[in-house]
Amino acid sequence: MKDLSTVRAEYEKIRSSGARLDMSRGKPNKEQLDLSNGLLTCLREDEFKASDGTDCRNYGGLDGLPEAKQLLHRMLDVGPDEIIIGGNSSLNLMFDMVGHAMLRGVYGVEKPWAAQKPVFLCPAPGYDRHFAICEHFGIEMLPIPMLKDGPDMDLVEDIAGSDVKVKGIWCTPKYSNPTGVTYSDEVVRRLAAMKPKADDFRIFWDNAYAIHSLGTPEDLMDILSACRDAGNEDRVFIFGSTSKVTFAGAGVAMMGASTANLNFIRKRLSKQTIGPDKVNQLRHVKFFGNYENILKHMEKHAAIIKPKFDLVTGMLEQELGSCGLASWSQPAGGYFISLNTLPGKAKKVYDLAAAAGLVLTRVGDTFPYGKDPEDQNIRIAPTFPSLEEMEKAMELLLLCIRLA
Amino acid sequence: MKDLSTVRAEYEKIRSSGARLDMSRGKPNKEQLDLSNGLLTCLREDEFKASDGTDCRNYGGLDGLPEAKQLLHRMLDVGPDEIIIGGNSSLNLMFDMVGHAMLRGVYGVEKPWAAQKPVFLCPAPGYDRHFAICEHFGIEMLPIPMLKDGPDMDLVEDIAGSDVKVKGIWCTPKYSNPTGVTYSDEVVRRLAAMKPKADDFRIFWDNAYAIHSLGTPEDLMDILSACRDAGNEDRVFIFGSTSKVTFAGAGVAMMGASTANLNFIRKRLSKQTIGPDKVNQLRHVKFFGNYENILKHMEKHAAIIKPKFDLVTGMLEQELGSCGLASWSQPAGGYFISLNTLPGKAKKVYDLAAAAGLVLTRVGDTFPYGKDPEDQNIRIAPTFPSLEEMEKAMELLLLCIRLA
Repeated sequence: MKDLSTVRAEYEKIRSSGARLDMSRGKPNKEQLDLSNGLLTCLREDEFKASDGTDCRNYGGLDGLPEAKQLLHRMLDVGPDEIIIGGNSSLNLMFDMVGHAMLRGVYGVEKPWAAQKPVFLCPAPGYDRHFAICEHFGIEMLPIPMLKDGPDMDLVEDIAGSDVKVKGIWCTPKYSNPTGVTYSDEVVRRLAAMKPKADDFRIFWDNAYAIHSLGTPEDLMDILSACRDAGNEDRVFIFGSTSKVTFAGAGVAMMGASTANLNFIRKRLSKQTIGPDKVNQLRHVKFFGNYENILKHMEKHAAIIKPKFDLVTGMLEQELGSCGLASWSQPAGGYFISLNTLPGKAKKVYDLAAAAGLVLTRVGDTFPYGKDPEDQNIRIAPTFPSLEEMEKAMELLLLCIRLA
Repeated sequence: MKDLSTVRAEYEKIRSSGARLDMSRGKPNKEQLDLSNGLLTCLREDEFKASDGTDCRNYGGLDGLPEAKQLLHRMLDVGPDEIIIGGNSSLNLMFDMVGHAMLRGVYGVEKPWAAQKPVFLCPAPGYDRHFAICEHFGIEMLPIPMLKDGPDMDLVEDIAGSDVKVKGIWCTPKYSNPTGVTYSDEVVRRLAAMKPKADDFRIFWDNAYAIHSLGTPEDLMDILSACRDAGNEDRVFIFGSTSKVTFAGAGVAMMGASTANLNFIRKRLSKQTIGPDKVNQLRHVKFFGNYENILKHMEKHAAIIKPKFDLVTGMLEQELGSCGLASWSQPAGGYFISLNTLPGKAKKVYDLAAAAGLVLTRVGDTFPYGKDPEDQNIRIAPTFPSLEEMEKAMELLLLCIRLA
């Protein structure tokens, strides 16, 4: 292990070199996007009809093409009749669900949340954009510790079971952002079966990394069936998209839920939009053909990004494996590695990195209200930079951790 | 003019023939959509970068590509910095604007409308989907008579000027749905300069037919400049789309407003979405190249649909021109012909037509709450059926009017 003066000297050398590195962006790299370039050209001039004869260029079709539902429903672990496909952003679908609940309530309990001082449970560290939706709508957030197999369910059951203001919980159940955790069957079952005080309590199940494995896929229990088995089939809204399957800016977004929930949502959609871009759905259908091809496609993604994950965890292990200065996740999928410094050190690491030209995800962003109570979580996003850039960035990050 | 027994006999003949005709759908026909098939194939596999280097396949770019703004801003009569491009549905942009105002208010007056029993002024007959948004959000609607040059401005000024609950007005200012009216300069100026009681009063300016002329375009005064001149530049939200320019289901939607308004909206967008489909915006840029080509493209649309409008108005004139049983619009653009029967006869005409296999827009749909106070307005949508179908449908409609 290097002594501190060597570390300091190496850090100064990088700092004065004017490096510009970025490990903050959870987005696919060019090579990944290139895998789907066929989407740009896969339709001929006369290919605009859906299998039922629908002219995809025209109005009509509120909730997605039948063949797009057929192609994608397994990604959400729901039936082909339990999915709606709309727009290009699952975040937008979540935002709209929360917004609608604020003004009109949810299926079965059409009482506006806005008038009830709603509270959401937020497993943390978690996804900053979920928290941003809550902040936007003025929903109070309660952080729930993330354990090795999902959120602390004792706490979830306790709080939701005793406070009627608790209306929802944000979950990224597979390869969770940023911890990489996949919820255990036990956690899924407890979420499905728990007895919240509020009968309009809903699980926002953002299965963003459903098929985004780096190797052998981890199993996630089918939440809709679990809810159904527990007699709570209307409890869950499932979200997903092809943003990290095809194009992050031009994919298709979808949601799954019980038939009653979807019918309720369709009523809103019929007022809200003329319908989604059916031509882009058709492109996805043509490009992939079937679900198995999507899974094969995801193996190509894994082949591109796994070496970057291996590089990060390998360097962490080699430099910090025995010194106790940090711990980190070893995710089997998803887009992030979650690094915990010693308590009270994350901001210092962030500042040192920033001063030397390395952009990290802002410390605190992975917690509600931007506040990491222990000041220790750093989210590393290895996918976007090249391997060479990642190596340089990691060298610098390791120096910063040592210095801090 | 045929005598009544001839009319009855001809009606019965059609009724028993099992005809199936439809004049209710304000959507482009196949020939019109074919004009834009180049959109399906205009990008090559390596064409995914915007002019500023943005990879349109990836995340980023909240409010539209710079070159798409450059291409489309004149359609809304705003500057290239006064436009946001997002999604494929301008209706969705309107819905979101109203929804946001309900929960959070508008720029400058961030008080939720929901708590204030909001009222909208609804020039009528008008667009049913505007009214549906109000119904969805529980906004009370006050119908305002449409005159030859726009809504009755005396009434608008009176009501909005005296009631703080009046928060907005729906306008389709050019080739209005369904009347075909283009607002006069005087009306636009009065809307821009009026003194509503509510300082969060907003004009929802749905310029859906901005460039959809059938011949020589009518001039519509630039509302944003008019508002600015009157010191009210934050009063108006302008909406438009390429739904009836390129593909009704896969075009691009946009809105224009003051810089302050747009910045306020961008704050919401940053929570709501990962950004619009930039690849589809790029397609539109590549396909058209410049705004002049869009205008030329619209002349091709006109060449296809004008004969249908001529057929409808020609047959109305020939059969009913002198008998006083009905009056109708002679629109210079847009998608509809508005027909007024004698008071109390429209539903009868609708029922007779339906019984003989002709679908018309439901009587009342062009009014708030689906109630035509005079039971006389019928909206004819000539674009979708073929000329032959239109001729048959019109023959039947004329018989129904005579019978009623």
